[in-house]
Amino acid sequence: MTSDTPKLIALLSGPDQRGLVAKVSNWIFERDGNIIHADQHRDHEEGVFFQRVEWAIEGGRSAQEEKDAFRSFGDSIGMRAHVAIAGKKPNVALFVSKSDHCFHDIILRWKAGDYPCDLKLVISNHETLREASEQYGIPFECIPVTKESKSEAEAKQLALLNGNEIDLVIMARYMQVLSSIFLDTWGKPVINIHHSFLPAFAGAKPYHQAHKKGVKLIGATAHYATADLDQGPIIHQAVTQITHGNSVKDLVRKGRDLEKLTLAQAVSWHLENRILVYENKTVVFD
Amino acid sequence: MTSDTPKLIALLSGPDQRGLVAKVSNWIFERDGNIIHADQHRDHEEGVFFQRVEWAIEGGRSAQEEKDAFRSFGDSIGMRAHVAIAGKKPNVALFVSKSDHCFHDIILRWKAGDYPCDLKLVISNHETLREASEQYGIPFECIPVTKESKSEAEAKQLALLNGNEIDLVIMARYMQVLSSIFLDTWGKPVINIHHSFLPAFAGAKPYHQAHKKGVKLIGATAHYATADLDQGPIIHQAVTQITHGNSVKDLVRKGRDLEKLTLAQAVSWHLENRILVYENKTVVFD
Amino acid sequence: MTSDTPKLIALLSGPDQRGLVAKVSNWIFERDGNIIHADQHRDHEEGVFFQRVEWAIEGGRSAQEEKDAFRSFGDSIGMRAHVAIAGKKPNVALFVSKSDHCFHDIILRWKAGDYPCDLKLVISNHETLREASEQYGIPFECIPVTKESKSEAEAKQLALLNGNEIDLVIMARYMQVLSSIFLDTWGKPVINIHHSFLPAFAGAKPYHQAHKKGVKLIGATAHYATADLDQGPIIHQAVTQITHGNSVKDLVRKGRDLEKLTLAQAVSWHLENRILVYENKTVVFD
Amino acid sequence: MTSDTPKLIALLSGPDQRGLVAKVSNWIFERDGNIIHADQHRDHEEGVFFQRVEWAIEGGRSAQEEKDAFRSFGDSIGMRAHVAIAGKKPNVALFVSKSDHCFHDIILRWKAGDYPCDLKLVISNHETLREASEQYGIPFECIPVTKESKSEAEAKQLALLNGNEIDLVIMARYMQVLSSIFLDTWGKPVINIHHSFLPAFAGAKPYHQAHKKGVKLIGATAHYATADLDQGPIIHQAVTQITHGNSVKDLVRKGRDLEKLTLAQAVSWHLENRILVYENKTVVFD
Repeated sequence: MTSDTPKLIALLSGPDQRGLVAKVSNWIFERDGNIIHADQHRDHEEGVFFQRVEWAIEGGRSAQEEKDAFRSFGDSIGMRAHVAIAGKKPNVALFVSKSDHCFHDIILRWKAGDYPCDLKLVISNHETLREASEQYGIPFECIPVTKESKSEAEAKQLALLNGNEIDLVIMARYMQVLSSIFLDTWGKPVINIHHSFLPAFAGAKPYHQAHKKGVKLIGATAHYATADLDQGPIIHQAVTQITHGNSVKDLVRKGRDLEKLTLAQAVSWHLENRILVYENKTVVFD
Repeated sequence: MTSDTPKLIALLSGPDQRGLVAKVSNWIFERDGNIIHADQHRDHEEGVFFQRVEWAIEGGRSAQEEKDAFRSFGDSIGMRAHVAIAGKKPNVALFVSKSDHCFHDIILRWKAGDYPCDLKLVISNHETLREASEQYGIPFECIPVTKESKSEAEAKQLALLNGNEIDLVIMARYMQVLSSIFLDTWGKPVINIHHSFLPAFAGAKPYHQAHKKGVKLIGATAHYATADLDQGPIIHQAVTQITHGNSVKDLVRKGRDLEKLTLAQAVSWHLENRILVYENKTVVFD
Repeated sequence: MTSDTPKLIALLSGPDQRGLVAKVSNWIFERDGNIIHADQHRDHEEGVFFQRVEWAIEGGRSAQEEKDAFRSFGDSIGMRAHVAIAGKKPNVALFVSKSDHCFHDIILRWKAGDYPCDLKLVISNHETLREASEQYGIPFECIPVTKESKSEAEAKQLALLNGNEIDLVIMARYMQVLSSIFLDTWGKPVINIHHSFLPAFAGAKPYHQAHKKGVKLIGATAHYATADLDQGPIIHQAVTQITHGNSVKDLVRKGRDLEKLTLAQAVSWHLENRILVYENKTVVFD
Repeated sequence: MTSDTPKLIALLSGPDQRGLVAKVSNWIFERDGNIIHADQHRDHEEGVFFQRVEWAIEGGRSAQEEKDAFRSFGDSIGMRAHVAIAGKKPNVALFVSKSDHCFHDIILRWKAGDYPCDLKLVISNHETLREASEQYGIPFECIPVTKESKSEAEAKQLALLNGNEIDLVIMARYMQVLSSIFLDTWGKPVINIHHSFLPAFAGAKPYHQAHKKGVKLIGATAHYATADLDQGPIIHQAVTQITHGNSVKDLVRKGRDLEKLTLAQAVSWHLENRILVYENKTVVFD
């Protein structure tokens, strides 16, 4: 196996049955593949099997050929298969408003080579981050949103996403709710960061809610956006201790680091094809 | 200052005003006291001042005399003062049901000398922990509770608390709700441990709720019990990461350590007179 | 698969080769086994493959028969295989001195059903914990150790371990160094807890060392004991923040919780056959 | 007290004596000051008293006048007093090499308004970060360092520091050791970030050391630089869990977040005048 050997990553899910691990590893072995890593999970209550398997294609077949073949194989054993070619970078769009900490954080990680993706586009409802965006060399599109213009604005956003062949949207503290029409039409994953340990403090101004309640920790939650606000499948959560001495302003400041780290981790897992969603929950193969 | 020198700890709170730190430290200095530690907090929004001050009485006056004098002094400057004589151990009762992890944990910390209190009594609605309790040498009282017998049971509990001159009740996973009548009649602090990161998953079966929701962390919350279930002032909270692989049973097992540590810390702060309650929140001078 | 279905857990290690995952899963599948969980790790630098696989035997063969067969299979593919029958409890001896926090913690977890083992014996160089041990119903043997009597004492310890068919020794703050002769003769695993984040502060009085150095966190390290003091393969480590305000006594008190949790986790992983040792390091399949 | 009211922060240290808290608070009260926050620490072993006190000057005197007066007062009671005027921003220089994660992190926090300082200058031994630095609008000076040119290079650095009236140097992964001559001549604080939990893995390539040792956590340590490499007073430390699955490259990547957060916290405390150094340790009034 050299660094040029093509590699595939498959995320498999479906009804549990005896011998699934053997079937999958056999299929790969017989087609001259070499499993680099495999992990699996069973939901015993629901009788569902989940597997992530990563392998090198050593017999000279092409990645695309094997990808198609594996999906057919998945069908043949009654499993849903998502297959990604390692190294094939998805296109990503960043949605932002005025707040810039997650914006800089995501972009700098990407520039440092941590994220196997192409950051094609920043979309915002404000001009605030245009200059910073363009200094990074990333096209910036400002689409203002008002109550009246919302559906029109979303149509423009969708056109940009489609025009740029975007595969993933990251809401890096984009302070607007995406409508269910937008999400349905778009149909691809959207990762959002909410600044509380959901399900506590869903909705607006979570730091104010936390301060009022007198909790001793604040959190951040990265989740896939769904039409149901702040209720999508949770990917990652983290918290930090606070004290009576912390004002709302302190919480906002402390929370920024939490938000950055939590969103960064979720994006990383997504880009490495480590996440499967089912029943509004996530299986994360870390 | 020797280890025999009497020491006082005062918790002071009231309307903020210029010179409070000076007034308090002066008062102590002029009566031959020596401040060992002082900490204070201001709630700027509410205009309230909080102080914890600990001092040694070096001029030969008695602890009781100084305690009374300080309370009068507090009155004279318009502040509420709670004063404790260091080393004077409060009496504590433990409320338990069948679950024993917090029960053993609290008792073993007390036996190890970590808790400056007298553990006088264990009260339970089940016989389960009688033997363990008596092996530790702590009297055990079983008071069964049914929907019908609840008020009668609480009357018995109150009689036991009063008869043993109890100062603090610790609910170490006591699986019953204390009525507002009980709490009002008793009138002294009750510390409870809830097995979630409140305000998320208040009420029954929080681990089941957490599992269903697909959160990525579980928590525990130690708080003072109030008539409003799981809504009392929060003293301490902690969380731990979980994964998709964890069943409800795993959460219960992992949660036990969280519950022990969180309750243990809250009890420790309470016994060291580090907690002030106001507006359904706590100031913890750690 | 019912709860009576016999289950095996194998830990496999050896030179990496193509198709290992397939070979193992196939072998199990063809003998009517059903893989419940499998995880693997490759050390690319050393070219070593590690796997933990857990499966149910569904074809009616006995656990012992399959255990032997799998070990032969391991030989046939050039891999070292450790195979355990799930539910077959190893015998454990606890080594303690005077300090009792890890002692109570391990025993209470065992009594709570968290540890699939038989806690057969407590061995100590002091009488201190005899009463507590016997209250728990666990035989207690006191073997005093002086510089002069050390080899004699170790001979007695070995006789007790062998006589009780012990499989694992847990040093729960046993304040003596086990000699290399003891460790070689015994030849089975010994888990120790060191009260620092090794390699920092190896040797005696780590909390004093930490305090003198002015570090801002203290730690605990659970590791397998080897002849090289505090240098054995690390299983688990944890730390907690401290401040300038903490005295050595505070560190000792805070450290107790760390020691308990770190040792408890290491023992749990060991008893669940999740640990492989190589090159003085551990692979922990969590 | 309005937001225009001048404020002072004093860090006081010296031999412990009865009544110090009273003396200080009295002095402030009598000069129409209002204590906003005061915290103190006693090192009972060494008999040293430390205090941080922050107050508003309400009687119309100037900040400079009160600052001088307090220092004289400190002298009169035999205490060393460092006094800072709140809002008077110190000048800061950033030392960097090629690595940019701490560089961006510090600058973005400063731009976000988290750091009350003037970031005047970036000094590097490489040209790598010139463009980024200049995009942020911060002057960049490249001073290459070789074994032969080291003393000459340090002379140039000192000239730049003095010419820009720098008060604090932050080594944001500057991969050169500052000589004791440099440190003595400069005479002002230098904060460094080391990528291990010191005292473990001091010196070069700590992540390689950690990987070889098989530790289960990696850390970062922010400390004041002294002539004794990696032995200066520790300000802050943090760690994160790692597993057998992590390569050195993974540790480097995971470590970056640790380094950023640990350095950021240390700088924040320093700029808020919360740190006192003594006996090669720090007192951090958080």
